[in-house]
Amino acid sequence: MKYSVITIGREFCTGGLDIAREVARRLGGPMYDKELITLAAKESGLSEQAIAAGEKRPSGSLLYNLYTMGSDLPLSDQVFVVQSQIIRGLADKGPCVIVGRCADYLLQNKADYLKVFIHADMAFRAKRIVEVYGEREQSPEQRLRDKDKRRAAYHRFYTDMKWGDARNYHIALDSGALGIDKCADMIASLY
Amino acid sequence: MKYSVITIGREFCTGGLDIAREVARRLGGPMYDKELITLAAKESGLSEQAIAAGEKRPSGSLLYNLYTMGSDLPLSDQVFVVQSQIIRGLADKGPCVIVGRCADYLLQNKADYLKVFIHADMAFRAKRIVEVYGEREQSPEQRLRDKDKRRAAYHRFYTDMKWGDARNYHIALDSGALGIDKCADMIASLY
Repeated sequence: MKYSVITIGREFCTGGLDIAREVARRLGGPMYDKELITLAAKESGLSEQAIAAGEKRPSGSLLYNLYTMGSDLPLSDQVFVVQSQIIRGLADKGPCVIVGRCADYLLQNKADYLKVFIHADMAFRAKRIVEVYGEREQSPEQRLRDKDKRRAAYHRFYTDMKWGDARNYHIALDSGALGIDKCADMIASLY
Repeated sequence: MKYSVITIGREFCTGGLDIAREVARRLGGPMYDKELITLAAKESGLSEQAIAAGEKRPSGSLLYNLYTMGSDLPLSDQVFVVQSQIIRGLADKGPCVIVGRCADYLLQNKADYLKVFIHADMAFRAKRIVEVYGEREQSPEQRLRDKDKRRAAYHRFYTDMKWGDARNYHIALDSGALGIDKCADMIASLY
């Protein structure tokens, strides 16, 4: 089976983005992560800041409520709808790698796509979060738990699937134990 | 990282046993599945029939109660204790593949071992259960759900881990989508 579209869900600071970038390079197609914010902003007429705010689960924040005013749909739902259309369109265009944003759920009826999940243990990720984003007042472990909780909640809200359950993915890998390069190798070996 | 011991957890009728056998062949070591029943029988003095009954979660069945009589521990706990000792001993002896029986949990403090989970969708497994075990009065889907439920319950009872959660394994693969041979290739590529 040849896969032309690969979706990668990941826990925070697992190197999932590096893996996605390397897989896209070998696949010879683009990778979409933050790029989806820019595309959604263009498509919707909303600012990139609004899209980024909408990528979070409905909160009561002032910024969030400001952007929601004047629409029947909460901002996060508007963003989800726009990004869903964009993701489906990109997947139809040709080989690409899409990171996060419930793409696994959105493309589930597509024949030639591969669903990947990347995870790693707390110690590996705690080291990485400090290397990449520096120290904060909160402990690295608490920051990671917060981020994971948000991703899981967002995914569950829009898909009703269990984020991180092996059975939702064709392949799930521990990047901390196997190494980032080896994970990219294994995914790339599938096409 | 070289892995000398590989544990394989699997949903029923995913071809997990074929994958384990092929991986063991390439690793050049033995594979333990039903063999653990024979070893546990020898070690404990119980019959193989008693061990097989004890591998299920405590039930109220007559056979189960018969074997439990005269011991302070329920039969399933006796079997778990004996098998745990055997599994730890085998893992210390050298390269091998161990299928099921909470080996992922028992060996979690061992450095050079790889935890694998194999799953597949209902359609793939329903076809396989009929091919391998024939038709029954119950639908293939119901038989699979029953088996999975037992395995999950057994695993949760003794380990308190979530059976099938990607984060409990180094690598989790969909044998229905990827193919049994490809799964064996990918696992073998790790040593």
